[in-house]
Amino acid sequence: MSETPSRRIDRIQPFRVMALLAEARELEQQGRDIVHMEIGEPDFPTPPPVVEAATRAIADGKVHYTPAVGLSALREAIAGFYQDRYGVSVPAQRIVVTPGASGALLLALGVLLEPGQGVMLADPGYPCNRNFAHFLDARVQPVPVQADTGYQLSLALVQQHWQADTRVVMLASPANPTGTLIPSAELEAIIDWVERQGGTVIVDEIYHGLIYGESPPTALGCSERVIVINSFSKYFGMTGWRIGWLVAPGELIPGIDKLAQNLFLSASTPAQHAALAAFEPQTLDILEQRREAFEQRRDFLLPALREIGFDIKVEPQGAFYLYADCRRFTDDSFAFAQALLQEIGVAITPGNDFGDNQPQRHVRFAYTTSLARLQEGVRRLQQRLAPDG
Amino acid sequence: MSETPSRRIDRIQPFRVMALLAEARELEQQGRDIVHMEIGEPDFPTPPPVVEAATRAIADGKVHYTPAVGLSALREAIAGFYQDRYGVSVPAQRIVVTPGASGALLLALGVLLEPGQGVMLADPGYPCNRNFAHFLDARVQPVPVQADTGYQLSLALVQQHWQADTRVVMLASPANPTGTLIPSAELEAIIDWVERQGGTVIVDEIYHGLIYGESPPTALGCSERVIVINSFSKYFGMTGWRIGWLVAPGELIPGIDKLAQNLFLSASTPAQHAALAAFEPQTLDILEQRREAFEQRRDFLLPALREIGFDIKVEPQGAFYLYADCRRFTDDSFAFAQALLQEIGVAITPGNDFGDNQPQRHVRFAYTTSLARLQEGVRRLQQRLAPDG
Ligand SMILES: Cc1ncc(COP(=O)(O)O)c(C=O)c1O
Ligand SMILES: Cc1ncc(COP(=O)(O)O)c(C=O)c1O
Repeated sequence: MSETPSRRIDRIQPFRVMALLAEARELEQQGRDIVHMEIGEPDFPTPPPVVEAATRAIADGKVHYTPAVGLSALREAIAGFYQDRYGVSVPAQRIVVTPGASGALLLALGVLLEPGQGVMLADPGYPCNRNFAHFLDARVQPVPVQADTGYQLSLALVQQHWQADTRVVMLASPANPTGTLIPSAELEAIIDWVERQGGTVIVDEIYHGLIYGESPPTALGCSERVIVINSFSKYFGMTGWRIGWLVAPGELIPGIDKLAQNLFLSASTPAQHAALAAFEPQTLDILEQRREAFEQRRDFLLPALREIGFDIKVEPQGAFYLYADCRRFTDDSFAFAQALLQEIGVAITPGNDFGDNQPQRHVRFAYTTSLARLQEGVRRLQQRLAPDG
Repeated sequence: MSETPSRRIDRIQPFRVMALLAEARELEQQGRDIVHMEIGEPDFPTPPPVVEAATRAIADGKVHYTPAVGLSALREAIAGFYQDRYGVSVPAQRIVVTPGASGALLLALGVLLEPGQGVMLADPGYPCNRNFAHFLDARVQPVPVQADTGYQLSLALVQQHWQADTRVVMLASPANPTGTLIPSAELEAIIDWVERQGGTVIVDEIYHGLIYGESPPTALGCSERVIVINSFSKYFGMTGWRIGWLVAPGELIPGIDKLAQNLFLSASTPAQHAALAAFEPQTLDILEQRREAFEQRRDFLLPALREIGFDIKVEPQGAFYLYADCRRFTDDSFAFAQALLQEIGVAITPGNDFGDNQPQRHVRFAYTTSLARLQEGVRRLQQRLAPDG
């Protein structure tokens, strides 16, 4: 009995990409050159002003626990960011600093869900979301989404799949693995309808800073009852620091505070002090240049992959992912990804990690490596998959 | 409905000491001088070699995600620590790096517990433990412990309170809030008996580096099925960095890895690189000096409080806490703590935070401030509580 893990563990699938990543590392140790298009984090280092702020804080001995909800100064700075960037006024008291968006998702779902209640989410989608729900003994209600809705939940889909026990609807805009946005009017309509059913919408805006084209408003403008998840990981280039935040209705903050006190004690103190520099004009300039670099990469990779024969049905407007139908080449995306890795040293993520909606027919490309490396990757793919193209 | 938190939140009590801490900060802002004896973290800064390692890692751009179970080098270093300090050989594969002992406790309980299963723990005890269990919809089985067992579970108590659904027994040695140890023979007997019932023992050794007197062996020497929790927070002076670890039976590691991948992605990367320097001889020298300083503080504070009239029934051999019966002064320890704060500017933690076993009659003193400040605190307590003593 002792060595049998709890059933909640059985319901959680390990990420298939981890096996590929390990294989890739092994090949590299053997001297092979691998083009990494599987990795879900920016290749850019943490911006220098943020690094400097961290170094200063550490030297000053700012290394003790903070309040569980985060440093007041950081909550204020995040409130200022919503004001400056989105023109939305969010009181700092509704903002909770967390160990990454990961910590924010655990707190948000933890405060909302009774065991057995339903969590509606798009399939394909960010894999951890359904696993947080499994962890909390909630019921995952995946909705297969297609290109016609930009791989997003729509009001019609939400209404169609709503069940008596549905408590939470999870959205992400831009989304992982598709990079697609939810149109603002649709977002508003979903939030409005779900809240009228007595449910809560969680919107993951972790990729909101990485949008190519017109910037949509934050979901916080739609309602004071929506929960918004965000993070310093992706746009701000701070993955390994483990720092993010959530914005929740005021009534939920005491419960979230209690949970954070117990589960985390607090988020990393050096990371919090570092993040204070993330909103400085100098940092935002650097981030804007990086956003442009990502856009350039997308503008190269998207047509190049289409030309090879990958069917990318929706032009993604954000994040750093391309979600491609690969049925022209395979009906087993995992074997396909493994073959590409072994044969031509190109690492990509098989669809299996994102759900059960035709995963064998899909792969995800991440443009989290330089344009030159992406070009090399495309060259290899071209040669292997479309030699006469 | 939307703003009603889940029932699991209702079962979690907020820490009473937080209200006192906020009051203390307010008094300080009004210019009052407060002696802090309520704080559960070392006043010492992070040791310089650890700070240097962090600064170097950050400058080198070591700020990306690591494997969910932690950097191999750190897992190896922790294995080396067990070998050097305890003469126990623990394969690095059984070690998982976590966001503090907090993260380790969530993973350990998460991998073991089905909803409804029982978790036996000592009352008084570390408050988060029962709240982790509540969070996982497990049943908390608190066992009132008294001075006769050093405020620890004994084999007799475990046997007496064992129930058909008991899955986990949680121990801590030294314990919070009492600073007491479990005798090695007793520890071994408990582990042996619980494992024969098919249960698992979790031993929290977060204060194991802070023992005054002979160093007992780690619980890892007793069994390969025990789970040991530890952290860089207390002994290593790294609270705000959020970095700790657990050691688990090999069979549980894949499940723990899956959970960590989903709940945390990884522990803080700068903190992991910093922690690599925690086991260097130079760091250990500093930590040994600090351990001696804590011992000196205990040796001052313990008799001084007894003289004032606090009944400290067991001489604590570790951590930085004294757990005192205060019935000579009050039968409402929370009101008592508030009065001491307001009237003489001495902050302590009321028993309420540690359980339901006569909490009104107990308070916890933390010697996490300098000897000079402790002396000032004792002077004020003496004047207020034993003016003729
Ligand atoms: C959609 C989405 N949400 C949340 C996260 C978690 O990121 P973090 O915990 O680093 O903030 C990720 C990471 O890949 C993600 O893709
Ligand atoms: C007994 C015990 N275990 C675990 C923890 C958690 O510490 P951390 O998460 O900082 O490692 C604490 C903190 O006070 C503690 O007292």
